[in-house]
Amino acid sequence: MKKIINDPTTVVTEALQGMALAHPDLITVTLDPATIVRADAPIQGKVALVSGGGSGHEPLHGGFVGAGMLDAAAPGAVFTSPTPDQVLAATQAVDGGAGVLHIVKNYTGDVLNFETAAELAAAEDIQISSVVVDDDVAVKDSTYTAGRRGVGGTVLLEKIAGASAARGDDLATVTAIAQRVNSQVRSMGMALTPCTVPHSGEPSFTLAEDEMEIGIGIHGEPGRHRVKLQSADEIVATLLGAVVEDLPFTSGDRTLLFVNGMGGTPLIELYLAYHSARSFLGERGIEVTRSLVGNFITSLEMQGMSITLLKLDDEFIELWDAPVHTPALRWGV
Amino acid sequence: MKKIINDPTTVVTEALQGMALAHPDLITVTLDPATIVRADAPIQGKVALVSGGGSGHEPLHGGFVGAGMLDAAAPGAVFTSPTPDQVLAATQAVDGGAGVLHIVKNYTGDVLNFETAAELAAAEDIQISSVVVDDDVAVKDSTYTAGRRGVGGTVLLEKIAGASAARGDDLATVTAIAQRVNSQVRSMGMALTPCTVPHSGEPSFTLAEDEMEIGIGIHGEPGRHRVKLQSADEIVATLLGAVVEDLPFTSGDRTLLFVNGMGGTPLIELYLAYHSARSFLGERGIEVTRSLVGNFITSLEMQGMSITLLKLDDEFIELWDAPVHTPALRWGV
Repeated sequence: MKKIINDPTTVVTEALQGMALAHPDLITVTLDPATIVRADAPIQGKVALVSGGGSGHEPLHGGFVGAGMLDAAAPGAVFTSPTPDQVLAATQAVDGGAGVLHIVKNYTGDVLNFETAAELAAAEDIQISSVVVDDDVAVKDSTYTAGRRGVGGTVLLEKIAGASAARGDDLATVTAIAQRVNSQVRSMGMALTPCTVPHSGEPSFTLAEDEMEIGIGIHGEPGRHRVKLQSADEIVATLLGAVVEDLPFTSGDRTLLFVNGMGGTPLIELYLAYHSARSFLGERGIEVTRSLVGNFITSLEMQGMSITLLKLDDEFIELWDAPVHTPALRWGV
Repeated sequence: MKKIINDPTTVVTEALQGMALAHPDLITVTLDPATIVRADAPIQGKVALVSGGGSGHEPLHGGFVGAGMLDAAAPGAVFTSPTPDQVLAATQAVDGGAGVLHIVKNYTGDVLNFETAAELAAAEDIQISSVVVDDDVAVKDSTYTAGRRGVGGTVLLEKIAGASAARGDDLATVTAIAQRVNSQVRSMGMALTPCTVPHSGEPSFTLAEDEMEIGIGIHGEPGRHRVKLQSADEIVATLLGAVVEDLPFTSGDRTLLFVNGMGGTPLIELYLAYHSARSFLGERGIEVTRSLVGNFITSLEMQGMSITLLKLDDEFIELWDAPVHTPALRWGV
């Protein structure tokens, strides 16, 4: 296992300490239980957004804590759901009296632990609503889920719902907007190489030198099928074909196109794939109105990418463009 | 070779086309010769900044074209210097009558081709000055250089000199500030894995499963020595030890600490290394006043990192904090 770490058991803790030192103006970090909280939380009268999940997908979610996006994140161990304890602590830290939205990626452990935390918070008279993100069209059920997995759409949802809360929307409105994003966003990913969880020390799966996995999950869990290496254009056509067909996206739609790296893929390949995706969508009359290209929801050092497409309307565009100031996304500030 | 590409010979072109489509508000791209130019160039009366170098180090340099940083970049083939032709075209495109600063990383081919371009531009009465960045303390001479290589310090120099030009400084002043950054910045890198240039199809070097290369160059060229895998704390102590000793940085100095990924290293490891670096510097009384953590000058999919330390003064801090709006760095806008 080749990693820049000290001890497999302290990777998350040390990385959190690094984040806290690098971004003292934006976030504060607690280690027991582990939370990343907006430095100026709680904000009285503002709906607060809390997300979380296993670590190893950075910058998701901790990198999105700050003005205009999340109020707190609960980072679990690598590829492991955060405990109810963590989610509750994050929720308590950010509640400003207007309620808290839990943004949960659809993995069985995450859903369960967020539900438990929501019950505990409700018992303290904190108003809780939640949205479960399930945008991955690759497989219906998976190793980690009943139903579709939550992947790249989560990033877009956190930005848009965060802007809704920032402009003063109430909990019902922010929740409805988050649910509407989830209903309008679809994703699919692929991998060229596996990744290695520090604690295990072994690659999560193996792929031959001429193979790739189509429809991979963000924990390296199996997707649709394993195939021989293909060209970027063929890969993009497979991913976007499934994405476009699913919603479906049709000619005349305005969209946000998000080409996401899995952590080990160079930016030059992501821009190349973005170019290919633009051709694919252009041929179908699907307009790309906003874009995001880079590593935002990753799987440690895995090489691969996912493509996410969100159908935009005027409100989504306004909320996407609104100011955001987090470690990993920043504009308008 | 596992890459998301169509054809090894068109990787740079297709990625440039993707960049142009993803950032139409910021940049325009020409393909023959290849340049990335600020969308609103030339800006009359403003000193223009042009950099360039081999592709494969993205987001450097094209990702730094925009308001407050570079006016243009000349991207060569992967790990290959841009031609004089490219640099000249970039220079012509951005000259607004106040002169053009060439920012050149110290590699023999880059220096030669920028010099030729400068002579051609001067013959057209464009006022040219140049700064050669040579911040890498790892080796005195290397496969690609006479003298030290230009690495992570380039990113910081482009930001600070870009802000100097944006506030209206004249060519002599912008050049002096760029040279002062180069005199106050030091870097060193390491790699856990090699990378593969698309055109060659083979890894640039080999490392055993228990080995890493200390002092690696950004093209995978050899560094100081190859050693057995070490802990993050040991790696950071080696890199920062060499960096701190070289300038030297001393107790009471204010610095910008830049932990840079080589392209294939997950963010969680970079933040972990940042934490370790803060401890190392804290023990020596060296203050970290500004920070940058992420993949900004890369070597394709190489796993590894470099650490750059810049000694700050009030002017550098003001220029670092000034607004910037490029594909890869953005704040204040």
